[in-house]
Amino acid sequence: MATSGHDHPSYSETFALPAGRPALSDLPTRATPVGPQSKKDAAAALAELAPTLEGLQERLFAQSTAGAQNRLLLVLQGMDTSGKDGVVKHVLGLVDPGGVSLASFKSPTKEELSHDFLWRIEKQVPPAGVIGVFNRSHYEDVLIVRVRNLVPEPVWRARYGAINDFERRLTGEGVTVVKCFLHISADTQLERLRARLDDPTKYWKYNPADAAERALWPRYQDAYADALAECSNPDAPWHVIPSDRKWYRNWAIAALLTEKLAELDPQYPPPAYDIGTEKDRLTALADV
Amino acid sequence: MATSGHDHPSYSETFALPAGRPALSDLPTRATPVGPQSKKDAAAALAELAPTLEGLQERLFAQSTAGAQNRLLLVLQGMDTSGKDGVVKHVLGLVDPGGVSLASFKSPTKEELSHDFLWRIEKQVPPAGVIGVFNRSHYEDVLIVRVRNLVPEPVWRARYGAINDFERRLTGEGVTVVKCFLHISADTQLERLRARLDDPTKYWKYNPADAAERALWPRYQDAYADALAECSNPDAPWHVIPSDRKWYRNWAIAALLTEKLAELDPQYPPPAYDIGTEKDRLTALADV
Repeated sequence: MATSGHDHPSYSETFALPAGRPALSDLPTRATPVGPQSKKDAAAALAELAPTLEGLQERLFAQSTAGAQNRLLLVLQGMDTSGKDGVVKHVLGLVDPGGVSLASFKSPTKEELSHDFLWRIEKQVPPAGVIGVFNRSHYEDVLIVRVRNLVPEPVWRARYGAINDFERRLTGEGVTVVKCFLHISADTQLERLRARLDDPTKYWKYNPADAAERALWPRYQDAYADALAECSNPDAPWHVIPSDRKWYRNWAIAALLTEKLAELDPQYPPPAYDIGTEKDRLTALADV
Repeated sequence: MATSGHDHPSYSETFALPAGRPALSDLPTRATPVGPQSKKDAAAALAELAPTLEGLQERLFAQSTAGAQNRLLLVLQGMDTSGKDGVVKHVLGLVDPGGVSLASFKSPTKEELSHDFLWRIEKQVPPAGVIGVFNRSHYEDVLIVRVRNLVPEPVWRARYGAINDFERRLTGEGVTVVKCFLHISADTQLERLRARLDDPTKYWKYNPADAAERALWPRYQDAYADALAECSNPDAPWHVIPSDRKWYRNWAIAALLTEKLAELDPQYPPPAYDIGTEKDRLTALADV
């Protein structure tokens, strides 16, 4: 088994989707297979990761200024209340906003619907040097679209192949695609939806449509199982993040992100100019 | 004098551009007119502001989900090395990335040049509920464009009026426009440019074009003085932030941003649904 060079398997492996079509109900939602085992330890571990993550991001950006094409795309998917927004806030909030490109995909507009489903996605792929984050993604086009019968089955079924082709192309262009399924139990979702109705500072997070979606839980789990199985390949694998515990979810994604960036081993580029010449130029411009 | 309700004038007033065409060389670049007086105190003050800023941002976003149109646009301008990127990292880095929309305006593309100068700007105006940040902005079209003679004088001169009209429209739509000029001395710029040539982790931040721009320092100061004077009005005033000390600059902008958001007094919206009904629906969906 490949290791990360530490005394544990890589986070990639730990959170890897098992081979074959997953029975999601068998995959743990509360497990803490590696890393911190308590909320307190997770806060400390996250704080410890922050400077490493920030340093990697700066070097990724720095090397892009000299032409390196690498970038990273973090795809966040999960049932309502699984914590996609929380990951954006608590994990991406650790790094320089200048190096992050965030795209939240809501219901498509009329214009977007008049194009291929990847049209609006393609426009949000991060440029070289940047960490892109998709809060929901092209996977909605084989999830809600399927569950809600928004297009005929042959149409959504053909999208698995289109998604694989798309992600293979991105990978070939230097994009490290990191896909995370934030896995929660139905009980956790119930608890979190109820919490939104119990707290005036959370009312705005609740939408009656959330209950309607919850009623379709089994169909969503089915659609997720197929999407994960059909669109997981070595270049752009899915990770299943146990997300019933927010502190574990945040730590796990931060750790995975840090590991993936570290594998890219970004480096500050050498100067593209002669240092001595430039120092002389500045000296000549000491008084302006 | 209007006050902020504290024992000091509002930050808006403290950092307000003086009336008339400013002599930039007379405006302080190292002053600390209010707030922390040391790097250590500034770090503490910034950390203390963070939760307030984050809370305001969340409420701004929350109320937009119920139809409120308010948003804020922070415009950052300043000479090279004045710290625009630093403000993005250290100030905007304090809030949820999901509530921030960042636009960095570089040299316009051929497509952008084939449109009016505000075409690319308009597309980046933040939506309701969001804090937008312009790292450079439409002001470049009366700064570098003027200094480098990229368009005839009557063209750039007409832009002052166009900018005022544009910002007045934004203000009318619910955008709080907060414009900050990060004011540094020529000596500070020299020191910072030299530092980039002395540190292999900063080589990538230096570009030989920076020296060429520095050579035009007086012309830029002239262009800034006109831009600030011509485009400062009560609805969208300019603030001059003493920026020779990075810690003061960051604190000052965070304090100003917090003050401006607090003036909007954003509120969590009431529920747009019946709470009892939704609780019953969820109970009926306890087992899915």
